[in-house]
Amino acid sequence: MDLLIPLDRALSAPLRDQLYSGLRLAILDGRLTTGSRLPASRTLAVTLGISRFTVDDAYTRLIGDGYLFTRHGSGTFVAFAHQSNPESGRESQSDPDRDSNRGWSKWSDRVTAATRATTPSHFRYSFTQGVPALDPFPFALWRRCQAHAGQELTPDLYGYGSARGYQPLRQAIQTYLARSRMLRTSVDQIVITSGAQQALDVVFRLFVDPGDAIVIEEPSYPAARNLMTAAGARLIPIGVDGDGLKSDELTQVREPAKLIYVTPSHQFPTGGVLPLNRRRLLLEWARSTGTLIVEDDYDSEFRYGQRPIEALAALDESLPGPGSVIYLGTFSKVLFPAVRLGYVVLPPDLVDRFLAAKALTDRHPPTIEQATVAKFIQAGHFERHMARMRRIYASRQIAMLTALDRYFGGSAHRDAASTAAGLHMLVNFDVDYDEAEMMRRATLASILIEPASPCYLSPPARTGALLGYAVMNEADIDQGIKALAKSLLS
Amino acid sequence: MDLLIPLDRALSAPLRDQLYSGLRLAILDGRLTTGSRLPASRTLAVTLGISRFTVDDAYTRLIGDGYLFTRHGSGTFVAFAHQSNPESGRESQSDPDRDSNRGWSKWSDRVTAATRATTPSHFRYSFTQGVPALDPFPFALWRRCQAHAGQELTPDLYGYGSARGYQPLRQAIQTYLARSRMLRTSVDQIVITSGAQQALDVVFRLFVDPGDAIVIEEPSYPAARNLMTAAGARLIPIGVDGDGLKSDELTQVREPAKLIYVTPSHQFPTGGVLPLNRRRLLLEWARSTGTLIVEDDYDSEFRYGQRPIEALAALDESLPGPGSVIYLGTFSKVLFPAVRLGYVVLPPDLVDRFLAAKALTDRHPPTIEQATVAKFIQAGHFERHMARMRRIYASRQIAMLTALDRYFGGSAHRDAASTAAGLHMLVNFDVDYDEAEMMRRATLASILIEPASPCYLSPPARTGALLGYAVMNEADIDQGIKALAKSLLS
Repeated sequence: MDLLIPLDRALSAPLRDQLYSGLRLAILDGRLTTGSRLPASRTLAVTLGISRFTVDDAYTRLIGDGYLFTRHGSGTFVAFAHQSNPESGRESQSDPDRDSNRGWSKWSDRVTAATRATTPSHFRYSFTQGVPALDPFPFALWRRCQAHAGQELTPDLYGYGSARGYQPLRQAIQTYLARSRMLRTSVDQIVITSGAQQALDVVFRLFVDPGDAIVIEEPSYPAARNLMTAAGARLIPIGVDGDGLKSDELTQVREPAKLIYVTPSHQFPTGGVLPLNRRRLLLEWARSTGTLIVEDDYDSEFRYGQRPIEALAALDESLPGPGSVIYLGTFSKVLFPAVRLGYVVLPPDLVDRFLAAKALTDRHPPTIEQATVAKFIQAGHFERHMARMRRIYASRQIAMLTALDRYFGGSAHRDAASTAAGLHMLVNFDVDYDEAEMMRRATLASILIEPASPCYLSPPARTGALLGYAVMNEADIDQGIKALAKSLLS
Repeated sequence: MDLLIPLDRALSAPLRDQLYSGLRLAILDGRLTTGSRLPASRTLAVTLGISRFTVDDAYTRLIGDGYLFTRHGSGTFVAFAHQSNPESGRESQSDPDRDSNRGWSKWSDRVTAATRATTPSHFRYSFTQGVPALDPFPFALWRRCQAHAGQELTPDLYGYGSARGYQPLRQAIQTYLARSRMLRTSVDQIVITSGAQQALDVVFRLFVDPGDAIVIEEPSYPAARNLMTAAGARLIPIGVDGDGLKSDELTQVREPAKLIYVTPSHQFPTGGVLPLNRRRLLLEWARSTGTLIVEDDYDSEFRYGQRPIEALAALDESLPGPGSVIYLGTFSKVLFPAVRLGYVVLPPDLVDRFLAAKALTDRHPPTIEQATVAKFIQAGHFERHMARMRRIYASRQIAMLTALDRYFGGSAHRDAASTAAGLHMLVNFDVDYDEAEMMRRATLASILIEPASPCYLSPPARTGALLGYAVMNEADIDQGIKALAKSLLS
């Protein structure tokens, strides 16, 4: 038997480990076949120029691991070998055609159909939307809260926690919602989630069987819609105007829907704020049809000029009968996205099933992270940071509006109501080409903008983009819009 | 019009806020009906004994919010009122009978059926299992890593991160798996999850449609099985013995299965370590039938006496052809559960769909948490902590075995192989009563034990419990087993 086991004294791994690995590999890849006898340890030691103890050690370990076995008086034998198949190398694994052979679920197929890969790259000007400015965040204060939280947490709080989330954070959220959103809720109705996206996922899993209907705004938030599509929901679109959802058209919905997903504080992406009469119609329709409302309050913290309007859930709370609104909030925009924390406020009778789903699927978010946010709110940093960011974003929004006027003249259109709140605006351009061409031109000019069409169920008639104004300062916004106008209008 | 708006100067809320809220509530609960005219602000000010400016302010806000409207020259009117319905008070919300009216999904119904509420309470002796000892954890070092991580992360790392997880953590895991589990994997095959439970949830969603089959060990890990049941899977049990899964019985599986869920390093809950020949049979069966193997390596870090056996995924890696093992690891037991981080190592062709699912459902775990674990591993604290805990747990295991012998004599039985690794053992008792009575007796004696039956698909013949030995010191283990013997054998 000719055993070629490569050994290298220059490697940091001991020779016995190298020998063990080499023999094991030889067994696994079929060079040593089942039942074949190995050289006596003395012989192999001489062959390889190493100590017999080294060989004995490797043999002993391989016997212990079941690769080899000994027969008294007759030697050491190979116990296990897999037939190697030269036709099917590992390289073939990344072949995308293999994809369909793996027994993927229908859910996975729908996920694949709903989501497209995005290729992030570096742009000179970034009008990215949905993310806050990170530079002004008080990271030093944050770290101090984290250190305090860590010192205060007793060891038992590092064990499994409640699926509801960390109690002091839920209390802080309760206080915050009562003050800022006029939403009076019991702490028991609040559950902490791994961001609003997870809250949406759990809600859709709890209510949507494939084929069930969900009413949505048209246009609406693509990441939420992709989750609905993945859940197998049929989507019933209702149009929006400058005042958000056209609630009076809800009576045209002819089939029962499980849920209606709305963004009443700041319609995504058009920006309208749903007025009270439309809220009333929406609530009445939901209650009369037994449809649950999912209120995604993704960025109402940033309102400019007006006081924040009370949450739809707050209005619902004031009405008699069982609640009909599931309210979602997120810390991704008021703190930072990487914190991965959001919350949901549920009608009381929905809490148990939501908790069962959370407990089963991922338990709860990291406790230290939750405790840090609780400290950050309790210490007043949260409200101070929001107030500061409101000023910063208001100023950046003005810079964006001014620049659009200056460089686009009358060729850029936005809904009048879209400047009430938020971190972005939807702008349609007077151009005679389509969105693909718009994106090609912007990318060529190293300007990151987000196309509007993914927000639409039916392709929009106009060529438009979502322009975020959160992450660049006023000067860069001015220059970025100037560059954008040059690239789109030339 | 008789308007009773309760105002209290002793409250910290300004009178104008109290008036606003009071009027709003009166409108919402129907005391003020649509179209009715409000008193002139001057009149109401006199009635309530407050300033006219206060009333004007409240009216203005209510008009702005759409509750009131003005008609020039004729006054201020109620714009919106909901008919109150005294029959349907909010109390009825917690009525469990309402549950079925909410349009819950089939998934939610299965979750409800699969999970039972547990009522945690305080016990004198805790043989809880599945959780590590938290007191010996080096929290000071952990906080230092956290502070370092926080100082090093640039602001952009506080934005949305990759669905794969934080790159340095994935690299640290790659190195760790190669060294300790002989699992050589590309960093691209590693995805960070919110604990192993979430990894399981994603895997089941990716592969299981209702009615699909999953092969499981009998008995097996209840939390994993509950997820399978929630996914609507049909479960095909294969028995285990002291050497884990009886792989030779896999040929009896007569129908195609999507997945097989196994715990080869330390069968849960019986403790067997799957020997190489059974691993070979398992891999061959999986490859020949096109079944994916889910290897849950939940606690192999804690092995006593023997060197850790290589992961099934490592063996699979050595074989030609596309990989057939999805490997799951968790930091819940080697660090602490509240860290909520785990990881999955995927065959290369499974990575894209897993990432699409992660990105869509909850993005990624908190970045700072991931960076802290990366630092903790890089600094060597991780391996030192594991080595220390291995000694502590080995000693506690011996204390448990000694105490079982001393106090139960021959009346407590465990599988011989169950002491090779882990933080618990499965013990069956020679008693002539059932599990419910066992639990009643233990609870009465203020001893926390976990009944064995939830691990079984078919009710077990014997009365047994899972006894964890991680969280109590040797003296308490001795006294706890003494008390348990007294309560069970009397």
